[in-house]
Amino acid sequence: MKLYIGIDLGGTNIAVGAVSDDGKILSQKSCPTDSARGYAAVIRDMAELAEGAAADAGFSKNEIEGIGIGCPGTVDNKSGLIVYACNVDMKNVPATDEMHKYFPNVPVVLENDANAAALAEYSVSGNGADSFIAVTLGTGVGGGIILNGKIYHGFNGVGGEIGHFTLVHDGIECACGKRGCWETYASVSALVRQTEDAIAAQPSGLMAKIAEKDGKVNGKTAFAAAKQGDKAAQYVVEKYLTYVADGITSIVNIFQPEKLVIGGGISREGEYLLAPIREFLRKYDYNKYLTKTELGIASLFNDAGIIGAALAAKSAK
Amino acid sequence: MKLYIGIDLGGTNIAVGAVSDDGKILSQKSCPTDSARGYAAVIRDMAELAEGAAADAGFSKNEIEGIGIGCPGTVDNKSGLIVYACNVDMKNVPATDEMHKYFPNVPVVLENDANAAALAEYSVSGNGADSFIAVTLGTGVGGGIILNGKIYHGFNGVGGEIGHFTLVHDGIECACGKRGCWETYASVSALVRQTEDAIAAQPSGLMAKIAEKDGKVNGKTAFAAAKQGDKAAQYVVEKYLTYVADGITSIVNIFQPEKLVIGGGISREGEYLLAPIREFLRKYDYNKYLTKTELGIASLFNDAGIIGAALAAKSAK
Repeated sequence: MKLYIGIDLGGTNIAVGAVSDDGKILSQKSCPTDSARGYAAVIRDMAELAEGAAADAGFSKNEIEGIGIGCPGTVDNKSGLIVYACNVDMKNVPATDEMHKYFPNVPVVLENDANAAALAEYSVSGNGADSFIAVTLGTGVGGGIILNGKIYHGFNGVGGEIGHFTLVHDGIECACGKRGCWETYASVSALVRQTEDAIAAQPSGLMAKIAEKDGKVNGKTAFAAAKQGDKAAQYVVEKYLTYVADGITSIVNIFQPEKLVIGGGISREGEYLLAPIREFLRKYDYNKYLTKTELGIASLFNDAGIIGAALAAKSAK
Repeated sequence: MKLYIGIDLGGTNIAVGAVSDDGKILSQKSCPTDSARGYAAVIRDMAELAEGAAADAGFSKNEIEGIGIGCPGTVDNKSGLIVYACNVDMKNVPATDEMHKYFPNVPVVLENDANAAALAEYSVSGNGADSFIAVTLGTGVGGGIILNGKIYHGFNGVGGEIGHFTLVHDGIECACGKRGCWETYASVSALVRQTEDAIAAQPSGLMAKIAEKDGKVNGKTAFAAAKQGDKAAQYVVEKYLTYVADGITSIVNIFQPEKLVIGGGISREGEYLLAPIREFLRKYDYNKYLTKTELGIASLFNDAGIIGAALAAKSAK
């Protein structure tokens, strides 16, 4: 068995795993990111955690075959530069070069975290699909495109931002600066906003009560109330799922991927989420005659970042 | 030099060219499609024209290296079946098998016509780009995605329908059955509709006068009036170009292609079309830090179908 290191660099924590070449996490370590201390200290911690995770899995530093770093934001996978990642407060950080100081003989790759997560999902549920897309409904709408088993990067490394096509022309302004991005309507943040709007219109309804009990509105509020038969919540959920489904159908019309999986916390709703999306796709997919894209739920959740970063290192060999 | 045959099967005419392996049309023949007579007669005509075009270029039937058929609608490029093509009134037509009756020893490929056209544009202006997209603004919005020099098909052959992502959620119903497709706002047909609406609101304006002179509203009406300083026409053109640019930016955010070209009759407007799109892209592209996609105008116009079909045959070898 060969050993890879997968690093999931997040705004709050750095999670590092020792990963087998078939994508299993053998051991895992983490520490706070604390990006205020500067990138050199952050990357030194990554290196220490990597060596520690490898040791816990029974491997020496020299036995590591490759290291993958998954990072949010804009990264240049060719040069190994973190171009701009606001969540971890890094700009123009030569991440792979810095990591090589600790592992001079080990290949190090840098990858966008959503791309890495998509590669991980592909490894567990892609079944060798020639085209595979993972969509993550979270704070934003992220995603990754896997073609012939490899991450699609675009020519500059920034490709695959499937949450940032326009779904609502001249709609709500997105964090990216453009108006009406799919993300602005289909992310969990968008669902929270839509739920809050519905609560403001009906402050004594069931959604308001659930939110009060939970201390705040979250991505589950409307789903929970809808399942209890609350009409206003059912309307919120239906409208939200229409935004999600319209976007999924758009992506399918562009790619006709063999498989598409939906991840992020909201994907724990399972068939309750998937059934209406599948129905929308059945009706509105451009492909009316040939085999349709298989829809599924992502399966790795939080581990996707570590596993995907490790597999990106493996795939670069 | 090796010789390929490119066939552009259209609703009105069949155009057949003898094409050199570097993508030059050496000779060309055509006849009316007249699809009412059934597919066997249509394909027999294709075969005759192919042999004739090869002869005009100085090649015998046996010297043809490959034949490509470009067809509108849904085609299965793997099996060579025209699944459904309403423009040529064909359904479940085994096009490559039928063609093999006349050319038993020549490889025959079937390709969606927009994909074929994109491959042709790539051959003349792709400069080896690792990712290249051609968008055609015509009756609809068609396109083709060329990755690593090859047409991207999706797993079922229907991929690359870039005109059919939703730009206006819950918008105008598209011919494909979904609402708000980019095509419904950015095609020439859409521009004609937008121009007609503006004329209805201002029946004595310059656009109305130009349309009356031309006998009807067409894709040039608003552009012509706008260039003469007509405010209402400038508003139509500006709004139309915003739809176009918002869609182009969406496609760029998904693919970050090295180059993207815009074709179709309207692309003859050149910089008048391109400048505002480039400006929109500069402002709203998700990629704020790395090299940007190069925008251009398609250069082959009507020849793209024949050349692309021939190059698809070459690329399949």
